[in-house]
Amino acid sequence: MRTIEWRDGSVITLDQTLLPEEEVWIEMRSCLEVAEAIREMRIRGAPLIGVAAAYGLALTAYHSRAKNRDDFLGEIEQSANLLKGTRPTAVNLFWAIERIIKKVRSSEGDVETLKKLIIEEAKRIAEEDIAVNRKIGEYGSKLISEGDTILTHCNAGRLATVDYGTALAAVRVAWEEGKRIKVIATETRPLLQGARLTVYELMRDGIPVTLITDNMVGYIMLKGLVDKVFVGADRIVRDAVINKIGTYNIAVLAHEHNIPFYVAAPLSTFNLNATSKDVIIEERKPEEVTHIRSIRIAPHGVSVLNPAFDITPIKYVNAIICEMGILSRDDLQKITKEK
Amino acid sequence: MRTIEWRDGSVITLDQTLLPEEEVWIEMRSCLEVAEAIREMRIRGAPLIGVAAAYGLALTAYHSRAKNRDDFLGEIEQSANLLKGTRPTAVNLFWAIERIIKKVRSSEGDVETLKKLIIEEAKRIAEEDIAVNRKIGEYGSKLISEGDTILTHCNAGRLATVDYGTALAAVRVAWEEGKRIKVIATETRPLLQGARLTVYELMRDGIPVTLITDNMVGYIMLKGLVDKVFVGADRIVRDAVINKIGTYNIAVLAHEHNIPFYVAAPLSTFNLNATSKDVIIEERKPEEVTHIRSIRIAPHGVSVLNPAFDITPIKYVNAIICEMGILSRDDLQKITKEK
Repeated sequence: MRTIEWRDGSVITLDQTLLPEEEVWIEMRSCLEVAEAIREMRIRGAPLIGVAAAYGLALTAYHSRAKNRDDFLGEIEQSANLLKGTRPTAVNLFWAIERIIKKVRSSEGDVETLKKLIIEEAKRIAEEDIAVNRKIGEYGSKLISEGDTILTHCNAGRLATVDYGTALAAVRVAWEEGKRIKVIATETRPLLQGARLTVYELMRDGIPVTLITDNMVGYIMLKGLVDKVFVGADRIVRDAVINKIGTYNIAVLAHEHNIPFYVAAPLSTFNLNATSKDVIIEERKPEEVTHIRSIRIAPHGVSVLNPAFDITPIKYVNAIICEMGILSRDDLQKITKEK
Repeated sequence: MRTIEWRDGSVITLDQTLLPEEEVWIEMRSCLEVAEAIREMRIRGAPLIGVAAAYGLALTAYHSRAKNRDDFLGEIEQSANLLKGTRPTAVNLFWAIERIIKKVRSSEGDVETLKKLIIEEAKRIAEEDIAVNRKIGEYGSKLISEGDTILTHCNAGRLATVDYGTALAAVRVAWEEGKRIKVIATETRPLLQGARLTVYELMRDGIPVTLITDNMVGYIMLKGLVDKVFVGADRIVRDAVINKIGTYNIAVLAHEHNIPFYVAAPLSTFNLNATSKDVIIEERKPEEVTHIRSIRIAPHGVSVLNPAFDITPIKYVNAIICEMGILSRDDLQKITKEK
């Protein structure tokens, strides 16, 4: 099962806001619809957002009636800006858009040539995502031992990517290699991606998974129930990993209990010429906190904070797993120095 | 407003599972009804559970038709056992029951005398709770400075006691003294006592409060938004504080960010001849995690952990505030050595 697919002139994807109760596939025919789906988190997960953005540009290209190169490029730039305005934190979105824009600008072809170029590049980004995730899984599995219990946060699985996942790719490869492992998934308030998505996809694969609330992490670590932590990332900067809100809590707790804390993410998530000070942490609407689904859980008019991500300083990260291999904190420091 | 009140032959209390949407007062006419209300968490909060248990015994006494002392004591013991079986972790429950049983056993009066004795003792326990909480508030406020932002977890407020609260008593006294302070309340999954109860009672008092999910604590501490942490306790043993699940996460995070972590609780919560190894951590039903109100948020059949409390080793606690004053870690060590 792929999470997103290109059909000539449209893109289909699973609506992740409705899982696990309903598996509804939505069909998007314009970049506007893709942007809306990203904003509403029907499409979520840094790598998947990047692929969706690429497909969004492909939809603009496919349906364009522009007669000349300049008009066509204008439409593509407009779509790119629309997409860039959806979510500010995950860097894969910007990476995928820039990659396509660069490709188009460096080509001298006519409108039809450029259309094909964009659609092909979007498909390539999607294909690469799968290959990259398999690599991440293979490297990540080297860090997983027989009998390990892996704690994961949010959803860094198949549903956050085109297929296979990042943090969960490591779990999947370890499982395929016959290691008897278990996963503990944090529910991940406010939007419950752990409870809804991670549990759903691991149960489908038959990998043992136990659900906890976010505030149980310390207790189960103190009880010795966690061997390793694997999470994904929305952006990796020189001094920190930016990931779903709650990641930093877990990193500090893992550090305190001497539990290795690993981050799995493709190179498209790396943004090593930036530091955490450069990153805008998206603040989402208060209703995500005051309501769960349609049910109000707090008094009317209460003041709320709702940052979608947090910042984990690199000192809490034992290693970062990408398609090139396993990077230690020191490796990462070296890469950033070379930049 | 008192959270619980004795009416001749019945006890009324606010059903805390229905707040903040509905303010429903329930009337209990037997110890069985009180036990059921404690089990279902219509009555919750360690000090309030203690008072409710005392009133439960008072109901048995009031309605008893026993003709002689032995039959009467048998009924009281039976009720005591029923109450003791409701929730294993908070110690105030056992403290209140033992206090009444001891009183009755040491009296040589007839059934009518004993009935009065129990009812009077239960009322006294309730009155003392208010006086004790005011004391805790006065001592606790000494630790709060003008402009402080206080993070609190779960509900250690009026609704966890007969009136005034423990951790929130400190906040209330500071506010009454004119200190301009703010509170940040964690929602406290699974049962959302922070979102439902703490926000509700602080908003009623006009004290500024902001709601966050449990997994935002690290992020807002890193951002410098928290000056002090105040929580309650369900049991204080020689080496640890036992409190609502999630307390330990916050304690470790506070420690990492050099933020003082204070526990406010009456002496009836102290159990200094025990250690954390002696404490049974109540495991509650999985539906509290897989559902929020009536809504399912995780796939059918998922495995769940649901400890209601966690264990915060004393090294993370900067001070414990009780009706006798402010105890440092060292003071506590001294007390436990004297015992």
